[in-house]
Amino acid sequence: MGFLAVITVGTLLLMLPFATNDGSWNNPLVALFTSTSAVCVTGLIVVDTGSYFSFWGQLIILLLIQVGGLGYMTTTTFLILLLGRRFDLRQKLAIQESFDRPFLHGNSQTLIRSIIATTLIFEIFGIILMFNVFSQKYGTSQGLWLAIFHSISAWNNAGFSLFPDSLMNFYDSWIINFTVPLLIIFGGIGYQVIMELYMTIVHFVTNKQERLVFSLNFKVVISTTAILLIAGTLIFFIIEYANPDTFGNLSFEGKLLTAWFQSVTTRTAGFNSIDIGKMTFAGLFLTMGFMFIGASPSGTGGGIKTTTLRILFNCTRSVLRGNDEVVMFRREIPVPLILKAVAVVFGSTNMVVLITFLISLNEGIVNPSFFDSGVSSLQVLFEVISAFATVGLSTGITASLSPISQLLLILTMYTGRVGILLFMAAIAGETRPRVVQYPEETLLVG
Amino acid sequence: MGFLAVITVGTLLLMLPFATNDGSWNNPLVALFTSTSAVCVTGLIVVDTGSYFSFWGQLIILLLIQVGGLGYMTTTTFLILLLGRRFDLRQKLAIQESFDRPFLHGNSQTLIRSIIATTLIFEIFGIILMFNVFSQKYGTSQGLWLAIFHSISAWNNAGFSLFPDSLMNFYDSWIINFTVPLLIIFGGIGYQVIMELYMTIVHFVTNKQERLVFSLNFKVVISTTAILLIAGTLIFFIIEYANPDTFGNLSFEGKLLTAWFQSVTTRTAGFNSIDIGKMTFAGLFLTMGFMFIGASPSGTGGGIKTTTLRILFNCTRSVLRGNDEVVMFRREIPVPLILKAVAVVFGSTNMVVLITFLISLNEGIVNPSFFDSGVSSLQVLFEVISAFATVGLSTGITASLSPISQLLLILTMYTGRVGILLFMAAIAGETRPRVVQYPEETLLVG
Ligand SMILES: [K+]
Ligand SMILES: [K+]
Repeated sequence: MGFLAVITVGTLLLMLPFATNDGSWNNPLVALFTSTSAVCVTGLIVVDTGSYFSFWGQLIILLLIQVGGLGYMTTTTFLILLLGRRFDLRQKLAIQESFDRPFLHGNSQTLIRSIIATTLIFEIFGIILMFNVFSQKYGTSQGLWLAIFHSISAWNNAGFSLFPDSLMNFYDSWIINFTVPLLIIFGGIGYQVIMELYMTIVHFVTNKQERLVFSLNFKVVISTTAILLIAGTLIFFIIEYANPDTFGNLSFEGKLLTAWFQSVTTRTAGFNSIDIGKMTFAGLFLTMGFMFIGASPSGTGGGIKTTTLRILFNCTRSVLRGNDEVVMFRREIPVPLILKAVAVVFGSTNMVVLITFLISLNEGIVNPSFFDSGVSSLQVLFEVISAFATVGLSTGITASLSPISQLLLILTMYTGRVGILLFMAAIAGETRPRVVQYPEETLLVG
Repeated sequence: MGFLAVITVGTLLLMLPFATNDGSWNNPLVALFTSTSAVCVTGLIVVDTGSYFSFWGQLIILLLIQVGGLGYMTTTTFLILLLGRRFDLRQKLAIQESFDRPFLHGNSQTLIRSIIATTLIFEIFGIILMFNVFSQKYGTSQGLWLAIFHSISAWNNAGFSLFPDSLMNFYDSWIINFTVPLLIIFGGIGYQVIMELYMTIVHFVTNKQERLVFSLNFKVVISTTAILLIAGTLIFFIIEYANPDTFGNLSFEGKLLTAWFQSVTTRTAGFNSIDIGKMTFAGLFLTMGFMFIGASPSGTGGGIKTTTLRILFNCTRSVLRGNDEVVMFRREIPVPLILKAVAVVFGSTNMVVLITFLISLNEGIVNPSFFDSGVSSLQVLFEVISAFATVGLSTGITASLSPISQLLLILTMYTGRVGILLFMAAIAGETRPRVVQYPEETLLVG
């Protein structure tokens, strides 16, 4: 796995004295945790990035984020390419006709170049906008560095911040509240969807006459993302409306802005403009659910993905309607894809429950005072979901976990990034598909 | 719905003065909660059954439990009957040949009589065994009443107890630790499985020569139940080994016995021989997972059911092995059944999350001191899973919830009993199955 190599290199670099502000050799666990968190674009931290690491340490972290994010985007987009070959031929032609997608007939070099170009365009756009805000407060050179760091961190859905309280100080800045979310959304929506959006714009600009045919992936991702963003904003707004520790003392406009920001960032980026540890329990629950769902395939984000959620939802709808097939936007979903969605959710749930269970058990034995100090197992669950879905939000307990628990979180971040199916397949070892056909038999369910 | 009528009658009866020990008219919410909890064989309580209700009140509760449990068993067994008609004919004949099941060719009256007979046989067996224990401590008449109440409550997986601390006083009684679990297991394993077990015994006693052919349902239920029971015993034993508030001070034998009891009862019955509120966090997590899984179809228990869990597990295995079908015991699982399993889990998860969310929100607004007093949202989640899976274990917060939250729990118990699919179908209203065929298109998942 390429990820492992990058994490190892990152760990070694972050251990060197020049990486930290106090100039001493770094604790290997801190270096490993930070490197994994950066490469997996998670954003969980055991030390404060801005004050603990020197400029060089921060630069290494930023490079690890960029390599991790780009690597993931490229790998998963290649998967789409492979997937594309299995399309029904007639359909594939229909799609190609209207979109003429570079990644369907281009070679892999063209694809990689196109992904890098997209990344740079969005990141530079983010740097320019944020520089205006940060340079006013921190001067030109420091402001530029802050803009570069936060733009790259946002596009890659990494959630690393150089401020000890993430973006809480900028909760009322319109520029930050729209630049960062836009970078997060486009970074998380997937390369294929961005390309289809781009082609649509080209289509309208050049005023072509053919009818636009969007891919199923595009329609599912766009509609599910929109629903989640709007619902998230409204629900966060309602829940935290009266909580004096989060939105309570803000203006109406400020509340709406913060709810919007939190709705975008919770699903995978992991920045925060309010103190997560002071959210209401209802807010924490909503956050855990949103983190688990995550972003869309072939973007930079994590989680079980919007498409998986939509398949489960439409399965349920089919059962309620008495249909034997699952249909989305007038397309039937193949059975193997449904099985895959089930496997992703089943595997993810088990992984999250198992790790939460092991950390609870471990802290109970090694560190009995941990839970006595008012920390609840809900916070452990929160932390594990955050690590698994590469979100990086935290109620603030990461640093006080014992080393074994931190190693478990490192494993969780890694699994969440390479994909639970790959991870389970690696554990299960080589298997051959079955060739025998068996008769059907039914059984009672539910 | 028959359940609603029984709950209503039960509520009215439990409101009458003769039902309570202090002889006054009962609080309607207490009566409604208790009646729902009894009919849905959940066992969550807002008042102590043994001291709050008079003998007559307790008798009403016991009748509600019996009617609720029998009603559920009969209804779901009829569903199997309907399902049986859809079996592959050749296979059905093979099964009938070896088993000659009464419920596959008998009429519904025979079926109901057979279910009632099975129920009575097991309950009487339980009463006789438990009478030995209770009569020693409480005398003949009180001992008999205790034996009757706990035997019926155990067979129906109701979890109601006349002792304020459930069966905690009998943690070291071998008779209680085997009678109650056996009643729970057989009550929860489903009528069809009991019948196949019975036929197998007859087969060996009469020394027939034909090969036994078990139904898929039988094999899946027996193997999954066995795995869960053994795994649960071992894990509870390990987790709570050193916890002085639960097993810590027991002998090795006592620890094993208590772990076994808790492993059986957690999956749906809801008795406890240790203080649930004092379990470790790891123990609470294990308990929540086990409660959610629940018992087997067509028994008296709740949860998503062992068969559903097994389908998800085998889906995941199929994906990892690169197979496009789901196979169990050399039988292919039909796709509509997989969709149904997904719908059950998706619906159940959403229901549990939604209700936990609403109760957290409600208590945060109505009753702000609720969470300040050290109650965590994890306990709310625990309570909701317990209600939904008709378990009835509690960390002790049910009675201190505000009325709206208690009504939400009542709704949850009811939904958990009539079945999430029926509940969602009722909300969704009339729908017609789609007749148009759409082309397949794939999308990226996970
Ligand atoms: K992140
Ligand atoms: K119960």
